[in-house]
Amino acid sequence: MIQWIAFDADDTLWHSECYYHDAQQRFLEILSPYLPDGVRGLDVLHEIEIRNLPDFGYGIKGFGISMIEAAIHVSGGQIIGSEIQKIVEVAREMIHHEIRLLDHVQETVESLAASHPLMLITKGDLMDQERKIQGSGLRNYFQSIEIVSDKTALTYRALFQKYQINPEAFLMVGNSMRSDIMPVIDLGGWGVHVPYTITWAHETVQEKPANPDRFFELEHLGPLPSLIAEIIRQAR
Amino acid sequence: MIQWIAFDADDTLWHSECYYHDAQQRFLEILSPYLPDGVRGLDVLHEIEIRNLPDFGYGIKGFGISMIEAAIHVSGGQIIGSEIQKIVEVAREMIHHEIRLLDHVQETVESLAASHPLMLITKGDLMDQERKIQGSGLRNYFQSIEIVSDKTALTYRALFQKYQINPEAFLMVGNSMRSDIMPVIDLGGWGVHVPYTITWAHETVQEKPANPDRFFELEHLGPLPSLIAEIIRQAR
Repeated sequence: MIQWIAFDADDTLWHSECYYHDAQQRFLEILSPYLPDGVRGLDVLHEIEIRNLPDFGYGIKGFGISMIEAAIHVSGGQIIGSEIQKIVEVAREMIHHEIRLLDHVQETVESLAASHPLMLITKGDLMDQERKIQGSGLRNYFQSIEIVSDKTALTYRALFQKYQINPEAFLMVGNSMRSDIMPVIDLGGWGVHVPYTITWAHETVQEKPANPDRFFELEHLGPLPSLIAEIIRQAR
Repeated sequence: MIQWIAFDADDTLWHSECYYHDAQQRFLEILSPYLPDGVRGLDVLHEIEIRNLPDFGYGIKGFGISMIEAAIHVSGGQIIGSEIQKIVEVAREMIHHEIRLLDHVQETVESLAASHPLMLITKGDLMDQERKIQGSGLRNYFQSIEIVSDKTALTYRALFQKYQINPEAFLMVGNSMRSDIMPVIDLGGWGVHVPYTITWAHETVQEKPANPDRFFELEHLGPLPSLIAEIIRQAR
């Protein structure tokens, strides 16, 4: 009965999407001399990001390459190198942004680590995710850290096998319905959705989970320990 | 006595550096209209690659961004977007190259997997390394697969702790003295160096291991099972 509690990292434990949002604004400023009326730069960027996912995966490096390709596309190939260098710098600065924990994360993680093994499951660039885990100060609360290239049912099934976890004893907390919640509930686990202020369009889904008994939504991580205690009480 | 046998992947099990070499040649062709006499494009690229390692890490995406920055630098910022798009395509094609095993790899890995747990330890982009492991057909011979952001003594020490390995019972096989051999021998393990035809300058070191009794060199993986059998025999 809830033996493992797993957390997504970006936008669940610490701010991340806001840095992508800021980067997009700077991308649009750099692009403004080339942006013809009627062409929406962010739409082009978003299309190229999605197209690039199978090649470059999640994370800042792939996002940087997508910004470069979008700038070239929108400018009809005319943007010059010195402007593209500015886009590279936008990506590089993203890698050095400070790690800011979300509200109630520190005390909630600390409290749950005392009663359960915690797992961190995050996708993105390996080195960048390691840097953020290190910078968060939370590393020692997690018994296992898994940096994965994607979060599908296959990913979770492989983790269940690796750690010999019964899905009914696994609860995942995250801000993405698509990556953190739906696949876990589909496999028979528990999902706690904690929406972030901004959600990347790619991570939103319209459906609701097939098994709503195992699905919860919280505004922030504060009430998570009480929710888990209640789930365990009801199961007795 | 040799409980774990670990392998590097790129240029130890399958060809990799040759694709970087080809990409560099195409980079120079794209850059040729901008390359002033006396400026050696590959030197600039190499400097930028090394400078970018702490930010972008190992792998094709970081290499692609470094090619773009080198092209901008060498052209004095004047290279235009459509030429940079060609560089992006060079990086994208690298991600889709076929997986070609090195000679004697298939039978050696198959044979050793029958007597020892095998570990794969590789650095680079997560998704790209997973694609190569999958494409190699070798996945099932490895009991553990570790994709890491760098291979230093710290990395190996963390793996020894994770798997409860005594370094004296750990033998690492790889083409890079810097990443595969020196740190393992420094920690008290065994190293088998199998040089690849081309070695990235960053991975070469001049020194020899401090403990030459635990260091071996082979031309290819063919004699590895006999070498390991001999090590085990002598230790009895």
